[in-house]
Amino acid sequence: MANKTKYVYFFGGGKAEGKSQMKDILGGKGANLAEMTNLGIPVPPGFTISTEVCTYYSQNKNTYPPGLRGEVEKALRRMEELLGRRFADPDNPLLVSVRSGARASMPGMMDTILNLGLNRLSVKGLAKKSGNRRFALDSNRRFIQMYGDVVMGVKGDALEEVLANLKKEKGKAKDTDLTAEDLEILIDRLRTTAEKESGRSFPDNPDDQLWGAIGAVFGSWNNPRAITYRSLNRIPDDWGTAVNVQAMVFGNLGDSSATGVAFIRNPSTGEKLFYGEFLPNAQGEDVVAGIRTPQPITRAQKQPGDAESLDELMPKPFKELEAVYQNLEKHYRDMQDIEFTIEDGRLWMLQTRRGKRTAQAAVRIAVEMVDEGLIKPEEAVARVTPDQLSHFLHPAFDPQEKKEVIAKGLPASPGAAVGMVVFNAEDAEQWAKDKKDVILVRVETSPDDIHGMNAAQGILTARGGMTSHAAVVARGMGKCAVVGCGALEIDYEKGLFRVGDRVIKQGDYISLNGSTGEIILGQLKKSDPDLSSPAFARFMQIVDKVRTLGVRTNADTPRDCRKARELGAEGIGLCRTEHMFFAPDRIPAVREMIMADDEAGRRVALNKILPMQRGDFVEIFRVMEGLPVTIRLLDPPLHEFLPHTEAEIQELVQTSGIPADRLKAKLIALQEANPMLGHRGCRLGITFPDIYEMQVRAIALAAGELIRDEKRKIHPEIMIPLVGDWKELKILRDLTKQTVEKVQEEMGIKYDYLIGTMIELPRAALTADQIAEYAEFFSFGTNDLTQTTWGLSRDDAGKFLGAYIKAGIFPIDPFASLDQQGVGQLIRMGVEKGRKTRPKLKVGICGEHGGDPASIIFCHQVGLNYVSCSPFRVPIARLSAARAAIGAGTGEGD
Amino acid sequence: MANKTKYVYFFGGGKAEGKSQMKDILGGKGANLAEMTNLGIPVPPGFTISTEVCTYYSQNKNTYPPGLRGEVEKALRRMEELLGRRFADPDNPLLVSVRSGARASMPGMMDTILNLGLNRLSVKGLAKKSGNRRFALDSNRRFIQMYGDVVMGVKGDALEEVLANLKKEKGKAKDTDLTAEDLEILIDRLRTTAEKESGRSFPDNPDDQLWGAIGAVFGSWNNPRAITYRSLNRIPDDWGTAVNVQAMVFGNLGDSSATGVAFIRNPSTGEKLFYGEFLPNAQGEDVVAGIRTPQPITRAQKQPGDAESLDELMPKPFKELEAVYQNLEKHYRDMQDIEFTIEDGRLWMLQTRRGKRTAQAAVRIAVEMVDEGLIKPEEAVARVTPDQLSHFLHPAFDPQEKKEVIAKGLPASPGAAVGMVVFNAEDAEQWAKDKKDVILVRVETSPDDIHGMNAAQGILTARGGMTSHAAVVARGMGKCAVVGCGALEIDYEKGLFRVGDRVIKQGDYISLNGSTGEIILGQLKKSDPDLSSPAFARFMQIVDKVRTLGVRTNADTPRDCRKARELGAEGIGLCRTEHMFFAPDRIPAVREMIMADDEAGRRVALNKILPMQRGDFVEIFRVMEGLPVTIRLLDPPLHEFLPHTEAEIQELVQTSGIPADRLKAKLIALQEANPMLGHRGCRLGITFPDIYEMQVRAIALAAGELIRDEKRKIHPEIMIPLVGDWKELKILRDLTKQTVEKVQEEMGIKYDYLIGTMIELPRAALTADQIAEYAEFFSFGTNDLTQTTWGLSRDDAGKFLGAYIKAGIFPIDPFASLDQQGVGQLIRMGVEKGRKTRPKLKVGICGEHGGDPASIIFCHQVGLNYVSCSPFRVPIARLSAARAAIGAGTGEGD
Repeated sequence: MANKTKYVYFFGGGKAEGKSQMKDILGGKGANLAEMTNLGIPVPPGFTISTEVCTYYSQNKNTYPPGLRGEVEKALRRMEELLGRRFADPDNPLLVSVRSGARASMPGMMDTILNLGLNRLSVKGLAKKSGNRRFALDSNRRFIQMYGDVVMGVKGDALEEVLANLKKEKGKAKDTDLTAEDLEILIDRLRTTAEKESGRSFPDNPDDQLWGAIGAVFGSWNNPRAITYRSLNRIPDDWGTAVNVQAMVFGNLGDSSATGVAFIRNPSTGEKLFYGEFLPNAQGEDVVAGIRTPQPITRAQKQPGDAESLDELMPKPFKELEAVYQNLEKHYRDMQDIEFTIEDGRLWMLQTRRGKRTAQAAVRIAVEMVDEGLIKPEEAVARVTPDQLSHFLHPAFDPQEKKEVIAKGLPASPGAAVGMVVFNAEDAEQWAKDKKDVILVRVETSPDDIHGMNAAQGILTARGGMTSHAAVVARGMGKCAVVGCGALEIDYEKGLFRVGDRVIKQGDYISLNGSTGEIILGQLKKSDPDLSSPAFARFMQIVDKVRTLGVRTNADTPRDCRKARELGAEGIGLCRTEHMFFAPDRIPAVREMIMADDEAGRRVALNKILPMQRGDFVEIFRVMEGLPVTIRLLDPPLHEFLPHTEAEIQELVQTSGIPADRLKAKLIALQEANPMLGHRGCRLGITFPDIYEMQVRAIALAAGELIRDEKRKIHPEIMIPLVGDWKELKILRDLTKQTVEKVQEEMGIKYDYLIGTMIELPRAALTADQIAEYAEFFSFGTNDLTQTTWGLSRDDAGKFLGAYIKAGIFPIDPFASLDQQGVGQLIRMGVEKGRKTRPKLKVGICGEHGGDPASIIFCHQVGLNYVSCSPFRVPIARLSAARAAIGAGTGEGD
Repeated sequence: MANKTKYVYFFGGGKAEGKSQMKDILGGKGANLAEMTNLGIPVPPGFTISTEVCTYYSQNKNTYPPGLRGEVEKALRRMEELLGRRFADPDNPLLVSVRSGARASMPGMMDTILNLGLNRLSVKGLAKKSGNRRFALDSNRRFIQMYGDVVMGVKGDALEEVLANLKKEKGKAKDTDLTAEDLEILIDRLRTTAEKESGRSFPDNPDDQLWGAIGAVFGSWNNPRAITYRSLNRIPDDWGTAVNVQAMVFGNLGDSSATGVAFIRNPSTGEKLFYGEFLPNAQGEDVVAGIRTPQPITRAQKQPGDAESLDELMPKPFKELEAVYQNLEKHYRDMQDIEFTIEDGRLWMLQTRRGKRTAQAAVRIAVEMVDEGLIKPEEAVARVTPDQLSHFLHPAFDPQEKKEVIAKGLPASPGAAVGMVVFNAEDAEQWAKDKKDVILVRVETSPDDIHGMNAAQGILTARGGMTSHAAVVARGMGKCAVVGCGALEIDYEKGLFRVGDRVIKQGDYISLNGSTGEIILGQLKKSDPDLSSPAFARFMQIVDKVRTLGVRTNADTPRDCRKARELGAEGIGLCRTEHMFFAPDRIPAVREMIMADDEAGRRVALNKILPMQRGDFVEIFRVMEGLPVTIRLLDPPLHEFLPHTEAEIQELVQTSGIPADRLKAKLIALQEANPMLGHRGCRLGITFPDIYEMQVRAIALAAGELIRDEKRKIHPEIMIPLVGDWKELKILRDLTKQTVEKVQEEMGIKYDYLIGTMIELPRAALTADQIAEYAEFFSFGTNDLTQTTWGLSRDDAGKFLGAYIKAGIFPIDPFASLDQQGVGQLIRMGVEKGRKTRPKLKVGICGEHGGDPASIIFCHQVGLNYVSCSPFRVPIARLSAARAAIGAGTGEGD
């Protein structure tokens, strides 16, 4: 018997068998109910059936493990004893709720059955006990509807119709207008309809009701919506869900009752302020469903027009609630999302869980909790995902811009979104595929809309509060959302919505401001985000303390360099010199160089380019003073600098005086079947050493000038691209060294500089041990390395990338996130082989992947010294690096 | 003293301190002189200074190791004792030759100084001893010329002019007309000129002469020509050369003296017949220099017009020579190239070495020696290089073709060559670079001409015999050569040659038949080689017994398949299906398929292509019955099948009725920046499964038909190209299986077939363990694997390949011979990982490298099951595989 598996975990009376660390077998909800119980917080007693039963249930044709029924029986008896009520007691019945609760929050599964235990007998007991027959009957009516819908599988509409018909019959407008007698009729009709529609008899015995509900929860683990959600969110199928059975408490017993949800800190801004919504005389589902507009919890959060707040209306239970939340905050050391019910003036806690929050809130809460001594810097880092931080860096509307606000809703998820109106998830997805930006407009959203919300730029709903489905999901996605905008009249059929006289049709542009709740007509311009928030600055300080991986930037202009430095870049990992060649004042000289027939002619043109390049480098070095600047020598094939269309060619002939036939002959000579694999990179340096020599000379002169004349600290790192063999590097390294040394001699100064190479060909990674002999640093060019390793042209992959992602061949576009299995293997090999030859070899990455969180974590793991990414990704990279250092991963969206 | 290095190795009097295995320290010549001495063969006594002295000499500023002088002294004394002559003796002087001799035969170094030891005193001794004053003086004259030229560095012309002037002065036409008195004057003048030109005094002391000559030999190891030769032939610089000092014997003592060279078997045909040339009353250099036309050794080899043969002229020494060569053949078990001198009726052997031979001779000698029991099959395999065998497969002229033979020379190196006449090596090289075929025409060739000979299609000389420089080098290169064509009057200045009245100018076409010696006007057509030689067939039998690596062929047509099978292919390693798409009767349907807007439209067109493809496969399967046939599904991007130039587009619009705008729109839609990395290979199969389905269906139907209706044994292997990830292969493997099984079901038969994949992307090699789960075989597509590993487009590499080879970055074009260090690493990885998952995985290679000897040896080493190459390379591949099996390498050209 000692080995017998325990399936049922009891909580109640101040003690629980579970605890919050047992999420794997109790699910999040169950574990936290146990934890709260142990903390002495008033939680209605109950028990959790472990996730292992769910797994057993799926694997054994929907049967239960032996012994389970006995354990449930025993737990029920303990509840009865603790509360002095009995299941199905005609005088004092025990009613329970049955809820699912998996390890990870998982929409799509069966959620809740309330008031279970009610039948013809116990409804009378509840009436007697509560002194409120109508309440008892209404509870029974709700139970039958829920049970019929969720457990018996009756289509929601059939039972809703019964209700609607009765109201019509009785000439009653609202549910609450129905009398006790009406409700008795309704109960009968609902049972009859449920039985007819489902072909099953409605269980009267509370035990049957209970097992029916338990089976429905376990069964819902494998419903299609739940399966899709899991596969999207990479939740293993064998985790299973737990079932929580808990004594009912009633927020709808009258005016001294209420139900609500709250956040310990503001989930939108992160402000340290208790924040939430409640409804008096209501059951919990009423708040979340967004049918009635909830009231604020505290006076502080009241907006003009809001109804009374909880602290005004029920000061005593509010005080208790305050004590509870402070207890929870201290205990969990994180912002919690709590659910409570006040039954006849008495506070009961029904749930606590990690509160979802906006990026802004996540950062502010993390920072403030570190400063309050609640958490350590590493924990702060773990609590903000790179995805969240990226919202910080998202654009917002220019506050100065003239705009026509047509309505205002709740600012449910901050940010700014512009797009065409669509009215359902399918359209949203389809239009987005066609490269259209869309705003999904719904009365309210449901889990069925997830894919459309994901495809949309922003979400707008007519109903529901800050904790409605739309609001919660949008915040999780970091997607701009405005909810509960009652001014909207949506006509799905006609594909339009009205705001007063104004008609907005499907396809019309609107703009949403998720931070103010404004709905604006047309397309507003978005502008750069404001990164001046002190919380952000403080958070990035914490991040930098935790990380070990360096973060540089890819920048070619002094402006980008300045921006990147502001955002925390510790140097330039990739300064492309070809962009400088394209400037209108330079391209003539560049073309002259290309058109030259021999070295002498090339040198004449190169001598014109030299002072311009030197000037570029002077500017960049000055901005980046004190930090390393990696400059890549010319990489693209020369034909990229020549015109290609007939019109461009004619124009060049006109302006340059180059004869058309010579130009065309050159174009033909330079034409390439596969330019990606052509005459570029160091191959240019080998065949036209004078070009590289000019560039190196410009670098050396620029550095020398600043060092000699301005006494600045300049750290040039010269990078040779597209090396495949050590001999290429040796030849160009010699050329580079000679050139720099010659300049130094001419200028009469000496300074340090490095010579290194890109590793962007499989062969370079494979022979990195040899290449490292001649390289002081490596920088993985993962764009090209991905192209060559996969044999996949980034410019051409579009034709089948979609099909590949759909077929699951690419879990994700390999140009967006590093293919760790294939390309990653070469990186690992390159690092290992390189360091074998040169143990202190400095290694970085400068492909697009340098700004991708998952790729950055990989870079940390394989021991890179730094990543380099575009300026705006620098903070994301810093955070990802810090998370890598503490093994936190990219994190799932909250 | 026990550890003292020995530097000098004596041979003479029937005993030698060295032996043939000591080539590393004695060089080839020295080792063989020692070996012959030990065999009891008459060799003039002498000694060899080891190669270690050469290394010491280069590394120690041209000085000698301590002790060397003593050892040389001692060896000289032993020679003196043995011969009863003394160095510099006025009555009976010892004269010596000094020759270089490295481990590998190496033109470019100082070769020979003869008659060393002659001075004012000893010349009298020699006159007295030989009873021939004129001979003694002429020997001295020759010595001074040679020594002045080679050791003192006087330009050859200066000394030649002295001789010419004297002849003019004395009114003498030939050297032999000069009297003893003339020669005495000449000797004085030559010494004076040598001293004046070199600024050094001419050494009178034979010891000084000897050390001067030794230093010149060691010094010549590092002259530019020798360095170039070594780098071209990958001979390590630290091997060094030995110096052979040997007592002189004289072939020019009168009519009972002679000198000659001979081959134990015919070096041109391989026939088992003693074969050689000699000159009576001459020194060895006269034969090789090609100044006098030599006489045949045996009656058997005499041609009409030839002078008396050696066996006719000097039967006794000839008998001795026969005994010697039979002894040598038995001892060395290989065809030897020997040098001899007959001094006053007495035979002396001066050299034996492995005889260079034509490909034909190599094969025939190897085969016959196996059949004579002289060597083992493995040795036969080791003695024919893939290069040699390839000459077997070279074209020849059609014997039926009408031709105008303008002259005939010696058939020095067989084969057929057609090209434009050039008169120097520089032009030959330059014109060849300009893609012109050239024939290098010279009076005679020298080591300075090597690069030009290499660049030329064939070589024609006016002077010299079958052992002249031109003949020996051309045979080694496997290059067609006709030599000693005295009818030619070459005018370098005017850039022409005359044959009788006919004038052939630089740039005119001629054709050479290296097997007949014919020189033909104009461009003759070359035809396929005749492979019906029984020696070839027998040799290939031996080869096949030795090898373990399979050899398949790359063939797309029944004709190629038949040819390949004839040449020994054991299956098809790569049958490309796209070539079938290009046939004029099919391309309309292919284009219809490409132009289709949807799957339905595509299927209509595919249904037209299906029976054609099935027909192709039926033919190929029938030819290859009993052997595996690997068919690769469609690989190139679809745009390759559409027209591209405006004219082609218009034509298609006319003939197909496809509207021009639709066609152009399709062309734009299909355009790719890098087609090599684009929408091709299995990516087509993933996006257009119906195309692959049609192809698989055609294969399955073709195989089924032959198996069911003709009861043939058919082994189809279906190959999916360009796989980068196992998921691609899984999807297409499933499609392939389903399609084949459906056909089998329809036809009511079952047969075995394999499904495999190309490994041609780095990622495929990196993840071969996963891919092998779904592949029954791998075939390395090393063309694409080289392109992707190096990031190098084969179509575009031409722009810098030359510069790369020149800079030593590519030791050889990586598309011609596998880059073992880079690409090879991926192959090794692919094989290892693949076999880890599937130990019996069949692995082959089907890139161009499958026909390259060095690459084939690599394939054997990494454990491939087979290589696949073009039909004409199959015998080369079989030989290379056999050589790999015995660790013989590609072999150096003989």
